[in-house]
Amino acid sequence: MITFNIEKPDAAIAETLQEKINNLTKPKGSLGRLEELALQIGLIQQTLTPSLHHPVNVIYASDHGIANEGVSKSPKEVTRQVIHNFLNGGAGVCFLARQHGIELKIVDGGVDFDFPSIPQLIDRKIRKGTRNFLHEAAMTQEEMELALQYGAEIVSDCHKEGCNVISFGEMGIGNTAASSMWMTCLTGIPLIECVGAGSGLDSIGVQHKYNVLKASLENYKGDNSPLDVIRYFGGYEMVMAVGGMLRAAELKMIILVDGFIMTNCVLAASRLYPEMLPYCIFGHCGDEAGHRKVLDVLQVNPILNLGLRLGEGSGSVCAYPIVDSAVRMINEMHTFQQAAVTKYF
Amino acid sequence: MITFNIEKPDAAIAETLQEKINNLTKPKGSLGRLEELALQIGLIQQTLTPSLHHPVNVIYASDHGIANEGVSKSPKEVTRQVIHNFLNGGAGVCFLARQHGIELKIVDGGVDFDFPSIPQLIDRKIRKGTRNFLHEAAMTQEEMELALQYGAEIVSDCHKEGCNVISFGEMGIGNTAASSMWMTCLTGIPLIECVGAGSGLDSIGVQHKYNVLKASLENYKGDNSPLDVIRYFGGYEMVMAVGGMLRAAELKMIILVDGFIMTNCVLAASRLYPEMLPYCIFGHCGDEAGHRKVLDVLQVNPILNLGLRLGEGSGSVCAYPIVDSAVRMINEMHTFQQAAVTKYF
Repeated sequence: MITFNIEKPDAAIAETLQEKINNLTKPKGSLGRLEELALQIGLIQQTLTPSLHHPVNVIYASDHGIANEGVSKSPKEVTRQVIHNFLNGGAGVCFLARQHGIELKIVDGGVDFDFPSIPQLIDRKIRKGTRNFLHEAAMTQEEMELALQYGAEIVSDCHKEGCNVISFGEMGIGNTAASSMWMTCLTGIPLIECVGAGSGLDSIGVQHKYNVLKASLENYKGDNSPLDVIRYFGGYEMVMAVGGMLRAAELKMIILVDGFIMTNCVLAASRLYPEMLPYCIFGHCGDEAGHRKVLDVLQVNPILNLGLRLGEGSGSVCAYPIVDSAVRMINEMHTFQQAAVTKYF
Repeated sequence: MITFNIEKPDAAIAETLQEKINNLTKPKGSLGRLEELALQIGLIQQTLTPSLHHPVNVIYASDHGIANEGVSKSPKEVTRQVIHNFLNGGAGVCFLARQHGIELKIVDGGVDFDFPSIPQLIDRKIRKGTRNFLHEAAMTQEEMELALQYGAEIVSDCHKEGCNVISFGEMGIGNTAASSMWMTCLTGIPLIECVGAGSGLDSIGVQHKYNVLKASLENYKGDNSPLDVIRYFGGYEMVMAVGGMLRAAELKMIILVDGFIMTNCVLAASRLYPEMLPYCIFGHCGDEAGHRKVLDVLQVNPILNLGLRLGEGSGSVCAYPIVDSAVRMINEMHTFQQAAVTKYF
């Protein structure tokens, strides 16, 4: 079983960082979240002059057995169709990644389709979709361990290529359902508050999804431990993201967190290794019911609030320029002394 | 007296625009605010393929007579010091403008300082600061008309240079005080709810500022009409921004609105010409008390909520990449037909 050696950023540099930020030519605190982000990134990188290199958005993709129960508005084949759309540059996250100079890595973690060999598609298929967790565990222990390892390896590759800031996204019809199960099991928040419309269910559809998930929860006989929960409910792409996030924290990379699904991956990852949380920057609060609540459990404040609910890493990639702004602020703004400006405060 | 010929965008194209947005490969509505922005910009430009050209952030700067009453944490000389910082590239808005490829235009509308001739500083000085509105009108009728005209001319110049998206910022110690007066007079919201800490007053400082403004309001014998309010309370930079915004709307440019002060300029501009409002995109909700309330009066929803309160156009420039994302979305995302993806909804 893979383990991770994650250290919390050393807080000793915090005071010097804050002093530098306070000496920039602005009323103290007047750049709000940019100042908080600069402090966080300076802590992660242990420097007064942080920098962002070779940003990557990794999209882990997989199918879900639970999709057979009609818990999603979208049919299962949309997973593989959207992967083609990623590869052709036409999907939602593609224009955002081009805009911000972010590399996309698409990982087939378990899509229910036999792709021909495509150089741009990283093949880590564990199985053609998870099992249906209404009736049985989504994956075996071996599959879960493999997913954690595969997810981590992709991030190690990014790091070797010079990446120090990594966004995580997903594609997988049915994965808001799986995420709702992680959320209710790991936080104790009642299932009803964890279930939402996903890609666009109406109220009858949401009710059906809830009924299926409620029955799944009743059938689950596990111990609610993080590893048991992520194994039982899957999916492969989500467990890969957990592995990827933990490796990123181990390598002291900045982790950009996308929407409801990725936030639940942070939830699971931080239950396994609480020290990973200071490496996470939360891109946005999305429109999927439950996202705000799981953010609140983690006691974090996302950058954007734009009503996004697309997944793919779209929300975290959309927030990237704000993170970049924070880094530029601490490096490029002049101090009161440099600028000969009377200190405002 | 300058007048403006502003037309509301023709709504006839809205349906076709919405259809194009709905046919992009994503669950309907799942790109939230990006979809709303794309619709708004398509309407402004009357096209299904909108574009952003030569973005500019105009910063109008001026001093305020009311600053002599101690209504600001910062001494008056900070206005001219920060202008030097703009010109040297060290101020808050500078790194943001560089990041996003936005030209800065700095306009001296009435700074209380004799600058040497500096090519990068556009000289439209009306007077070395407004008069103190505790005792008298901040400016004369002639000065107000000149400020509207100067503000508009700068925008016409930007337009001639190819700009179709313009952000407005300001610098002027004392201008949150003037803005609070505009807000209370034009909305009827009690003064106490319009007054905030500005660049960093403590609670005693805010109380003193409120007392000064309350006395000013009692001394004011005008008719609360928009033109009388902006003339009486100033400042020159704010009236210039009103003129600039009205010209921008006349020229069908996208107007990016910054914080508390610029939002009050939109308030005044839209009371004069309600048709200007559909051209405005609100960059952020800042931390200055009253900003949220004036946004609510205008019934608008800003893009960012990052606790910024620096002014200078920093909030609107910080939001620029999100506006750019919306434009890229409608131009670059593939449709369901192009991508051969089963429609999600």
